[in-house]
Amino acid sequence: MNGKVYLVGAGPGDPELLTLKALNLLRQADAVLHDDLVSPEILGMASAKALRYDVGKRSGQKSTRQGAIHFLMIELARQGLVVVRLKGGDPMIFGRGGEEIQALRQAGIEFEVVPGVTSALAAAAAAEISLTMRDTASSLLIMTGHFAKDDGNHPLPDLRTLLAAGTTIALYMPGSEPNVTVNKLVAAGLGRHTPCAVISRATTPNQQVAVMTLGALGRTRTHAKPSILIIGDVARLSRYDQVRLNDVFSLPFPAQAEVVPQPKNGAVNHG
Amino acid sequence: MNGKVYLVGAGPGDPELLTLKALNLLRQADAVLHDDLVSPEILGMASAKALRYDVGKRSGQKSTRQGAIHFLMIELARQGLVVVRLKGGDPMIFGRGGEEIQALRQAGIEFEVVPGVTSALAAAAAAEISLTMRDTASSLLIMTGHFAKDDGNHPLPDLRTLLAAGTTIALYMPGSEPNVTVNKLVAAGLGRHTPCAVISRATTPNQQVAVMTLGALGRTRTHAKPSILIIGDVARLSRYDQVRLNDVFSLPFPAQAEVVPQPKNGAVNHG
Repeated sequence: MNGKVYLVGAGPGDPELLTLKALNLLRQADAVLHDDLVSPEILGMASAKALRYDVGKRSGQKSTRQGAIHFLMIELARQGLVVVRLKGGDPMIFGRGGEEIQALRQAGIEFEVVPGVTSALAAAAAAEISLTMRDTASSLLIMTGHFAKDDGNHPLPDLRTLLAAGTTIALYMPGSEPNVTVNKLVAAGLGRHTPCAVISRATTPNQQVAVMTLGALGRTRTHAKPSILIIGDVARLSRYDQVRLNDVFSLPFPAQAEVVPQPKNGAVNHG
Repeated sequence: MNGKVYLVGAGPGDPELLTLKALNLLRQADAVLHDDLVSPEILGMASAKALRYDVGKRSGQKSTRQGAIHFLMIELARQGLVVVRLKGGDPMIFGRGGEEIQALRQAGIEFEVVPGVTSALAAAAAAEISLTMRDTASSLLIMTGHFAKDDGNHPLPDLRTLLAAGTTIALYMPGSEPNVTVNKLVAAGLGRHTPCAVISRATTPNQQVAVMTLGALGRTRTHAKPSILIIGDVARLSRYDQVRLNDVFSLPFPAQAEVVPQPKNGAVNHG
């Protein structure tokens, strides 16, 4: 008899932000396949008998690795095991959960998706920024820092119009090269004076929050991964001006930010 | 000595989708202020000694009620109590958490935001729809069905361009008048043939999932609240064609609804 695969969101980092369902499944699991982003504390909650597989993706061999993950999930389930596929955040956003669902369906393996707390919401909670505000911010766009690929398949959304329409933007950022990310955002219509908040390692002991403008962000150096960039007027409402209330708050960026060389004539680096 | 207010996300409905932190806080709470959407099962997890206040909003007196919530939170905290302000989903999106934060800050009350599983992600999990797909769906717009108010303050975002740019849209729908919602979406640029999935009461025993087109949705009757509408090609990838796998699945809408052609073996059918 076949086992079952659970695609489970592990949440943003803090083990306390696991769901009760995720914890129960980890305790029942015969096998756990996890990403790099899932912390040792969370893995430690799994049954001692569970087989553990770190299937975090290394650069340069992404498609091979994804195929290997599919193969492993399917083979373990065919041996009758309860398999927990544990993903940072939520499995249905930026986690390639869709590809894993397709593979499981094609193989006829029973599965279930267990949602989790996605990093944008954890970052907003950490920075005390409500992503929507009645009458001023009515929607939220969640995107990655890889939004401007050279594939030419998709026109870039006009972020300026979205922001004017009261949309807050939450960007799942690559940790390095903030100037590259900012240049892409500017090319997509955002002004350099747009307020933003950078939240690194939200909900972990190393959490850092900083509020600035996109222009200032573009002049900062590499910062700690993973990080979320919240863009829009709501960023002004963070606890940035409440520093004395909470010593967790910190400003990880240099006051006189090291100037990163900018691309000439404002050209966007799509690298 | 002042107490503390926790703005806590109760998740989408299933008590198992509470976070461990939310459960621990409920057990410690001296007072719980909750919305209508929070289930009795979840409220039953709170400490027996906790004062309970249903502060769900009734139509017609929203601003009065919001002010009363602020007053109550602040007064309870000033009496030294641990106050849990429990909100359906996540507190930082569509929950007026921003206003509550401002009120708490102005009153000098210590507070903390505890994120939760937002309904769009729970709906996606229930329908087995990945909201992003590598190369085809790269971002997610979360909005409410109240997006096109007559206030004239905000231009409407161009949803057609967003969809073409690979953005999936998740709409937190009012339960009634799907035709009004669809007409607004069409006015914002979406075609009536756009695939969509309606997920009602996601993660509860009364969960319902249906996949159709916006045009078909506009011809359906009122459906169960609360519901999430997922719009975009990813809706074709739901378990709509997997009915026999799970008897929770049902089609609550009239049979004459247009049926979206389903993918065969994972291939997207753009017919």
